[in-house]
Amino acid sequence: MPRLKKTIAKVKKEPPVILITNDDGVTAPGIRNLAEAVKDLGKVVIVAPDKPQSGMGHAITIGSPLRMQQLHIMDGVETWQTSGTPVDCVKLAVDKVLHGKPDICLSGINHGANHSINVIYSGTMSAAIEASIESIPSIGFSLLNFSMEADFTASKIYARKIVEQVLKSKKLDKHLCLNVNIPNVEASLIAGIKICRQSYAKYVEEFHQRKDPAGRNYYWLTGEFKNFDKGKDTDVWALEHNFVSVVPVQFDLTNHALKKQLETKFKF
Amino acid sequence: MPRLKKTIAKVKKEPPVILITNDDGVTAPGIRNLAEAVKDLGKVVIVAPDKPQSGMGHAITIGSPLRMQQLHIMDGVETWQTSGTPVDCVKLAVDKVLHGKPDICLSGINHGANHSINVIYSGTMSAAIEASIESIPSIGFSLLNFSMEADFTASKIYARKIVEQVLKSKKLDKHLCLNVNIPNVEASLIAGIKICRQSYAKYVEEFHQRKDPAGRNYYWLTGEFKNFDKGKDTDVWALEHNFVSVVPVQFDLTNHALKKQLETKFKF
Repeated sequence: MPRLKKTIAKVKKEPPVILITNDDGVTAPGIRNLAEAVKDLGKVVIVAPDKPQSGMGHAITIGSPLRMQQLHIMDGVETWQTSGTPVDCVKLAVDKVLHGKPDICLSGINHGANHSINVIYSGTMSAAIEASIESIPSIGFSLLNFSMEADFTASKIYARKIVEQVLKSKKLDKHLCLNVNIPNVEASLIAGIKICRQSYAKYVEEFHQRKDPAGRNYYWLTGEFKNFDKGKDTDVWALEHNFVSVVPVQFDLTNHALKKQLETKFKF
Repeated sequence: MPRLKKTIAKVKKEPPVILITNDDGVTAPGIRNLAEAVKDLGKVVIVAPDKPQSGMGHAITIGSPLRMQQLHIMDGVETWQTSGTPVDCVKLAVDKVLHGKPDICLSGINHGANHSINVIYSGTMSAAIEASIESIPSIGFSLLNFSMEADFTASKIYARKIVEQVLKSKKLDKHLCLNVNIPNVEASLIAGIKICRQSYAKYVEEFHQRKDPAGRNYYWLTGEFKNFDKGKDTDVWALEHNFVSVVPVQFDLTNHALKKQLETKFKF
């Protein structure tokens, strides 16, 4: 496939193409709410997993082929489901659905938090990171409520504000990627939007060991969330104070400070 | 489980505990070669997936329980296989096999490259990153040869050198994590070890569309590797010049440069 340097919309001078995916699956309320929030800002196309894919991180499908089917979930929004991971969905959307790059890629709204270290395990954020690797500006949205009955009213308001801001911003990083988390409170209680850094907060985990009817062990992952970071500039701090947190995310994992140390300390 | 501040080995004043995992599965030649290379540097324990898990990224198993069985693959090395991802293996090893933190976690030797952007998709490197999140120094090793018949002679020499260097280094980053790639050449042709940054190099991908016997489409991911980065300080440059590349890796994905831009440019 020939890759366009400009997006399809820019070549044709049409409204921006907005690709939406998620990791909770195409039928999750969060993705429908996100599409509703931004539907009139451009041409929305959904390409999302056909089943929940939470915790898939940046997994891709390399040993088996993928399936993709069109379906109807809301009027005016072309929608496809795939058998792949969230990252597979972004790749398939660009190559086989849009035949080029969208103007922006949105992922979510995830049912549950993706702040702090969770960005690494998150299928929602991995889809957004995948888009940013391809120079498609991207935003992942997560609401701090795991329930399928969660209220997305506030999330929709703030998701729209942030998408509008990114669409109208010029000369930002061409790999722009934002990790947005929304506190689980009514819109009137939200204190505002805060640009943050990723907190060093994570699950302290252990496995519950059980025995199956045949007497063999099996293990369930469980954990308790703990914030080890005292900073007031982190996403966890912002969310605890009812701010919507926005963490700019990069895919260059080089630890430059450690690189300098090793260059002087390591002797081979 | 009570977490020890010191590692088990340090509490008991014993040789260092070396945890080894991978993403090619417990039976892959790469993991056996890595264990052989470092076997006399400490007490080696293997906890690895029971099947290939390449491309799994930082996936974890959260919707179903895990299985774990002990098996014998080489003398003097306690070995377990699990039904989980590479990241699951690290978590299970700490909680249910070692009952505490090892002194170092090694992952690999992967059959195939994990330089540049591939660090994000790699199960090998995600296992190493998981360990570093838990403040366990970690190193992922990958040989630039996909074959199960690959020659690991040079890899073993350089893996051992790097592990020795990390074990004897004091006061390094407590989250130290190294992404080591080894060129696919004879040991005598290796130019040395080079500390590098991650290159912006990636697969330019497309899907091959085929039809199944029932006439329905399915899609195979394919791609061509391309280096978009002209720097001479990158892992791709080093490998092209027969150096072993060592990229220090971090799990803080905050894009601090973009954060500063957004703080002044975004108006809500």
